[in-house]
Amino acid sequence: MKSNQFKADLKAWANLINTHLKRILEGLNAPLGLKQSMAYSLLAGGKRIRPILCLNWAQMLGLNKEKILNFACALEFIHTYSLIHDDLPAMDDDDFRRGKPSNHKVYGEAMAILAGDALLTYSFELMLDNPIPCSFLLKASRIVSKAAGASGMVGGQVLDLELENKDSVNLEQVQTMHRLKTGALIEVSCLSGAILAQEVGASNKDLDKAKNYGQNIGLAFQIIDDILDVIGDEKKLGKPIGSDIKQGKSTYPTLIGLEQSYDLAQQSINQALECLDDYRGQEKDFLQNLAQYIITRAH
Amino acid sequence: MKSNQFKADLKAWANLINTHLKRILEGLNAPLGLKQSMAYSLLAGGKRIRPILCLNWAQMLGLNKEKILNFACALEFIHTYSLIHDDLPAMDDDDFRRGKPSNHKVYGEAMAILAGDALLTYSFELMLDNPIPCSFLLKASRIVSKAAGASGMVGGQVLDLELENKDSVNLEQVQTMHRLKTGALIEVSCLSGAILAQEVGASNKDLDKAKNYGQNIGLAFQIIDDILDVIGDEKKLGKPIGSDIKQGKSTYPTLIGLEQSYDLAQQSINQALECLDDYRGQEKDFLQNLAQYIITRAH
Repeated sequence: MKSNQFKADLKAWANLINTHLKRILEGLNAPLGLKQSMAYSLLAGGKRIRPILCLNWAQMLGLNKEKILNFACALEFIHTYSLIHDDLPAMDDDDFRRGKPSNHKVYGEAMAILAGDALLTYSFELMLDNPIPCSFLLKASRIVSKAAGASGMVGGQVLDLELENKDSVNLEQVQTMHRLKTGALIEVSCLSGAILAQEVGASNKDLDKAKNYGQNIGLAFQIIDDILDVIGDEKKLGKPIGSDIKQGKSTYPTLIGLEQSYDLAQQSINQALECLDDYRGQEKDFLQNLAQYIITRAH
Repeated sequence: MKSNQFKADLKAWANLINTHLKRILEGLNAPLGLKQSMAYSLLAGGKRIRPILCLNWAQMLGLNKEKILNFACALEFIHTYSLIHDDLPAMDDDDFRRGKPSNHKVYGEAMAILAGDALLTYSFELMLDNPIPCSFLLKASRIVSKAAGASGMVGGQVLDLELENKDSVNLEQVQTMHRLKTGALIEVSCLSGAILAQEVGASNKDLDKAKNYGQNIGLAFQIIDDILDVIGDEKKLGKPIGSDIKQGKSTYPTLIGLEQSYDLAQQSINQALECLDDYRGQEKDFLQNLAQYIITRAH
């Protein structure tokens, strides 16, 4: 029941984001084909976790979420561009994404590359366009850029491609890769919300909490994803645990075993929950539930 | 002689930019392979016209160029990313760029896509990191984002790909395509320099002049490029004027003839020069010479 309530909350937040994403796209002046390609991937579904994290952290710290809808949606623009480029034949070569043909299967490779480029570029226009004092906007946009770029998400994708071709991979390498490839943007989604809330008095301690929370749920999310791959495989395919190793893919379960993976995920969630100790209100409840929801997915 | 002096000035400016580009790359924390791929294209040469325009406009309006070197270099990051992505097999499929193998021929398609993504993302980090009041930084960064994205450069590349597949193309379509694909970033290179110089009192009229100058030299540059293609072809290959039509490529000479193309380019240069009337000093001289240099290339 509590879980049902959380899922309803999550859905309501996603609806809010989707409405704003559509509004942004309507206002975009671009060649029709490009706009369609951008909209196709942007509105293909997805839980909108990154903007939701940003809005919840900002509002928990006292900032009205309506003031930073553009900023929050920019995080989804960045996430979507990264999925489009990752799916390209030269990269992961995935024909499907969220049950639909991937962008390049529908619009062709050239348009998929350009739609990704346009989404990324527009994300900065969105980040820099919110009724927030410019010093905070600038600071928040800079750290998002850092998290999304060569020393963050793009760097992580490079490491991922490099690890695929390696004979042996250790836990540290996998952790670094995930921390950059998916962790950095999740972390900065929380942190940027807190930075924007500096307008209404959020402190450096609040920023640390947001960053720490984001880091920990990002890590737990990845571990659970790896675990679900194994469990899913076992149930559906009867594939034994550890067969991922033969495919050359190193995951948490293949590197440290299922049990230790669970423990590591639970530990991260506990640390994330601790970061919320000083706060209260419905955003705190939501962020608590979100952290707990990550771990219950694997039970 | 005057032309030699201008070329020496141009070289000196390019050296200044190159030094700063190298410094920026040295400070970049990224996986080695990614960094090498980014550096390969960024340091492959090029006239550095966009940062040079930005710095000259800013300094002509009273701003010390040293304060905005990051911003100016960001324009070269954006230009370089666009070249890497344009050269990809799915796009223009060019194996060479500036006499060297294109990025994907050296580093592979995946890395070329990611290097482009990283250059674009980092350009915003650079734009937002200059000792300039944040309101001006923010304004300048936003218009660069607009000029580089779906309603600017990326949109122009989409139009270019679309025009290639059309049976008949008119002048207006070609002009719109060029205005977006190359014009928008050249224009905004001048305009952003003027916006940053608002810190030291640059007026809205100055902004208009910078924008207008950039728009006109961008147009002239494209026309002369088209003319040089024809003249170059005639001299080197003995290919008759107009053969571009058979290749399906619409250019200014193929659409309105050589003479009218010259006239249009000269007209644009005259308008660009008019924008400099109210100013003086060595930056004015340089910007004048630059405009005139564009047209003399075709004589």
